Amino acid sequence: MDRRNFATQLAAAVSGVALSGCATSAATGPAGRPTFVFVHGAWHGGWCWSEVVRLLAEQGYSSVALDLPGHGATARFPVSYTHKPQNAAALVTEVSPLAAISRNDYRDHTLKAIRGLVAAGSGPVILVGHSLGGATVSAVAEADPSVLRRMVFLTAGVPVAFPSALELMQQPENAASEISSLLVGDPAAVAALRLNPDSADAAYVAKVKSCFYHDVSDAAFTAIANLLTPDEPISGFASPVNVTAARWGAVPRAFIRCTPDRAITVGAQDRWIAQADALMPTNRFLQRSLPTSHSPFFSAPADLVSALVSLT
Amino acid sequence: MDRRNFATQLAAAVSGVALSGCATSAATGPAGRPTFVFVHGAWHGGWCWSEVVRLLAEQGYSSVALDLPGHGATARFPVSYTHKPQNAAALVTEVSPLAAISRNDYRDHTLKAIRGLVAAGSGPVILVGHSLGGATVSAVAEADPSVLRRMVFLTAGVPVAFPSALELMQQPENAASEISSLLVGDPAAVAALRLNPDSADAAYVAKVKSCFYHDVSDAAFTAIANLLTPDEPISGFASPVNVTAARWGAVPRAFIRCTPDRAITVGAQDRWIAQADALMPTNRFLQRSLPTSHSPFFSAPADLVSALVSLT
Repeated sequence: MDRRNFATQLAAAVSGVALSGCATSAATGPAGRPTFVFVHGAWHGGWCWSEVVRLLAEQGYSSVALDLPGHGATARFPVSYTHKPQNAAALVTEVSPLAAISRNDYRDHTLKAIRGLVAAGSGPVILVGHSLGGATVSAVAEADPSVLRRMVFLTAGVPVAFPSALELMQQPENAASEISSLLVGDPAAVAALRLNPDSADAAYVAKVKSCFYHDVSDAAFTAIANLLTPDEPISGFASPVNVTAARWGAVPRAFIRCTPDRAITVGAQDRWIAQADALMPTNRFLQRSLPTSHSPFFSAPADLVSALVSLT
Repeated sequence: MDRRNFATQLAAAVSGVALSGCATSAATGPAGRPTFVFVHGAWHGGWCWSEVVRLLAEQGYSSVALDLPGHGATARFPVSYTHKPQNAAALVTEVSPLAAISRNDYRDHTLKAIRGLVAAGSGPVILVGHSLGGATVSAVAEADPSVLRRMVFLTAGVPVAFPSALELMQQPENAASEISSLLVGDPAAVAALRLNPDSADAAYVAKVKSCFYHDVSDAAFTAIANLLTPDEPISGFASPVNVTAARWGAVPRAFIRCTPDRAITVGAQDRWIAQADALMPTNRFLQRSLPTSHSPFFSAPADLVSALVSLT
C-alpha cells in the first residue's frame, strides 16, 4: 500500500504551516441558510435522494440532487444487459459504454452547479456525498474549498490515507463488505464495476439487497432495483483524489456513520474518520450515527434528514 | 361533456366579483429569487428533471424535483411486470398495487413541501408541472394560491373547461395523441393507466419512444425506459380538479407549448390555453414554445431552462 499521500499530508498538518489562515473558515464556513447539494454513489442517481429532498423542503431547505454523468437518464447500458432475455454470459466480458467517463468529469459537473448557486447567492452549499460520492465531494473541496460551508460524508470514502476508492475499499477493516461478491466480470476488463440488478437469478438479486438495502422492504427494493444502473465506470473507483490539508482539510466536515452497513463496514468508516482527523486535528469530523444499512435515504429518510439539519 | 365547471367559472370571471382583490398578486406574485418546484407527469419520477435541475443550479436557481407518491423509489409494480420473463398476459388484468393513491395525495404531498420552503424564506416558489402534473399544480394553486409566484404548465393539462385529465385527453383536438395505443389493460379494471416500458415486444417499445421521446436518441431512450414505472393510478387521471377564478385564476401562470408533441397535441395545448384565458382574461397565460416532443427535459434541456428562467 502506498501511504505517501497520507504521510506527506500528515507532516504538513502537524507542522502547522498548511493550517495557517484556515482555522476560521474551517470552524464555520460561509454564513447564511444553506442549500444542500447531493452526490450519489455508484450505480445510483440523483433519484436516491428524492425522499430526503422532499423532507428537507418541508423543513425549508432547498436542495439539488445531481445525476453524475453516466447515471440516471444519462446512463448507458451494455447491450447484453438490456437484451431480452438478458445475455448473462456476454455481460461478464462486454466493455462498458461508460468507460470514457472520468473522475474529473464528476468533479467538474458538480463544481459547476455549486459555483452557479454560490455566485447567485443561493449558497452557502453543504455538499453531501454517499459512498463513492465521497471521492467527488473531496475532489470538489480540494478544487475550490471556498464554495462549501461543509462537506458531509454519508458512509462514504475519505481519500486521505489512500487516495482511490478501490484502495479504501480493500483495507482490512472492510473485509466483510459484501460488494465484491456482487461484481460481474473483471472490472479492469469491462472498465467498470458492474452489478446486475436486473438479473433473473433471484439468489443474486437477494445478495444485492443484503449488501445495500437489508433494512428496506422487499416492495421498496423492487422499485430501487428498477432504478439502478449496472455500470460504474472504473475511473470513479480507481482514480486517485489527492487532498491537501490547506484546501480540503480547511473545509468543515461531518461523517454520518451507518453502523450495520454491509457495503462499507463501520470499521472502515471509523478508520477513515480517524485518518482524516489525524491529518487535520484542529478540524475534526463532526459525527452522527444511524443504525441503518448503506442506504438510509430509503430505510430511514427522516432520521437522515434530522442528522443533515443538525449539521447546518 | 359536462361543461358546468367552465360555465360557472367563466360567469364568475366576467362578473368581476371573483377577481376583486386579486389583480395585483396575479400580476407579479410574491417577490424575491424563486425556488423551482417540479411535478413530474405520469409514469415518470423526479428523475426526469435531473438535467434541468443541474442547469438551473449553474444559473443560480435552487430547485426541488419531487417524486409523487407511488413513483421513483416509492413505485410499486404488478408482479406480472417484474416476473422474469415478464408475464405479459397477466399484466393485462392484474390490479395495480397503487390503486389506493389519490389525486389529493399528490396535492398534499406537493403543497407540504412548498409550504415548508415558503415558511423558511426559501420561496417564492415557481411550480412547474409536466403533462398530468398540470392537475397537481392546479390543485395546489387552488388550495393555497398565496404560496406561488407562478405556475408553469409544461405541455400539461389545464383543468378549466374539463376538470379531469381523462376528459382533457379525450377532446377532439387531441385525437392524434399516441397515448391510448400504448395502454395495457382496461384502466378501470386495473385501476391504473398502465404502460409496459419493460416489454420484450420491440415494436411496442418503439411506440413508447414515438409517443413521448421521438427526438431523443435511442441510447438515451434506453436509460429513460429503465427509469419509467408502469402504473399511473387511475385517480390521477379521473379525479376532477375544480378550480376557481378567485384562487387558481389569481396565480400568474405560463404555458410552455411543445409543438410537435405526440402525446398531447399542440392543438389540445392551445385549446386549454384559450379556455383558461377566457376564464381569466385579465390574467392570461404567458406562452413559450419549444419545437420538441413531449419530453424537452431530455431532448432540449438547455432550451427548457432558458424558457423557465424567462418566466422568473
